[in-house]
Amino acid sequence: MLYRLVIDFVQKQNNFIRLEPSQEHYLRRVVRLNNGQDFIAMDGRGNGWRVTLTPEGGEIVNSVEENTELPCNVTLIVALPKGDGFEDIIRCTTELGVNCLQPVISERTILKPKENKVERWRKIAQESAEQSERQIVPYIASPVPVTEIFEHFKGIDCSKYIASPRTNAPHLWRCLQEKPSSQEIVIATGCEGGWTPQEVTKAIDCSFLEVSLGERILRAVTAPIMAMALIASLQESN
Amino acid sequence: MLYRLVIDFVQKQNNFIRLEPSQEHYLRRVVRLNNGQDFIAMDGRGNGWRVTLTPEGGEIVNSVEENTELPCNVTLIVALPKGDGFEDIIRCTTELGVNCLQPVISERTILKPKENKVERWRKIAQESAEQSERQIVPYIASPVPVTEIFEHFKGIDCSKYIASPRTNAPHLWRCLQEKPSSQEIVIATGCEGGWTPQEVTKAIDCSFLEVSLGERILRAVTAPIMAMALIASLQESN
Repeated sequence: MLYRLVIDFVQKQNNFIRLEPSQEHYLRRVVRLNNGQDFIAMDGRGNGWRVTLTPEGGEIVNSVEENTELPCNVTLIVALPKGDGFEDIIRCTTELGVNCLQPVISERTILKPKENKVERWRKIAQESAEQSERQIVPYIASPVPVTEIFEHFKGIDCSKYIASPRTNAPHLWRCLQEKPSSQEIVIATGCEGGWTPQEVTKAIDCSFLEVSLGERILRAVTAPIMAMALIASLQESN
Repeated sequence: MLYRLVIDFVQKQNNFIRLEPSQEHYLRRVVRLNNGQDFIAMDGRGNGWRVTLTPEGGEIVNSVEENTELPCNVTLIVALPKGDGFEDIIRCTTELGVNCLQPVISERTILKPKENKVERWRKIAQESAEQSERQIVPYIASPVPVTEIFEHFKGIDCSKYIASPRTNAPHLWRCLQEKPSSQEIVIATGCEGGWTPQEVTKAIDCSFLEVSLGERILRAVTAPIMAMALIASLQESN
């Protein structure tokens, strides 16, 4: 298995990849590649190349045609859980194929993330994309109040869901099956304590459909992972 | 929401629950219940009661009729991942409805769990069952070599799967849909580095069916969670 490295698209110049000192250090000291050995460079936007390490940087051998991406675009709106829970969500849902993670502050959100958290989250998304052999790196947006996001999506024509526990709403799986050709899927999951009734009402006003993720109570970390597992399976098993 | 406590079935004597000192301390000091307030006691085997805290222990008010359990019995065979990964697997898959977790040592397993680990894992399963409002506590078996387990299941008539990355095998979801009425489902997922070809061959010899969990490479922690999310959804969305 070749080592995979995400590069910035400006690092590619014709048939050459200009490596950052930190990337070169990683490839030589940690991955232990020598000159003449190959790795995969990806621009995180869908393009990849087989590259040979040289004293000057990386020489492109050929472009890599592969596609492990889902045929639809998935955005997860996640009310930030306690502690480091959002990091686990980034790792697992990146592996499962998410395109965008939008952390939100809901009424019951306790965590107040520091500014530098977003940078750390993006680094985790990049590493997870490399490890899970994806072609794109999911975009991690900056946290915003949840009602802003519901408003934002109000005018956008796509499949929008909000997951609630203890509801008589239909199961997400059933809803997904009724719209198997959705190109854009958005799903919102709550933090500890769940959404307030006002938040659910607001989402429904913005044309989100309330859905269930099953009979048991899921933690804030498990709910988005489960939702993403279902979306990916529906797309890939048909 | 009433607080939920798992008790040993010998603690129930007619209409009375004899609380352990640690349970009483937890209810009074952490949950902050006073005499006269109610909680739910569950025996972890499917029975539950609404109970009033009294100076003597717990007085049963009535039995609780609820069922958040899956209609099928699910065993996850999990090659132990590095670090504390198995704890995350216990938490998430308990919420998703697993019945039994069988940790196994495969050829590429690095972790050598200490004897007292099993006790800790069982405690985590109990807490997760309480929080996710289940009626049963999943059984966490002691780790054994994986080939023993494949042999064990060889003679047992149930739906048996082994998940492999980079395979042309059918998606788990499609296989589950072809057998929607399975009463017993067993699925094995590998650790970092995956199964050896010999392990996959052994499993197939023991009538396990090789399946895929999608196009991307999942970590050892994510694979069993994804599998359990699919099994639960198939059972609950029909």
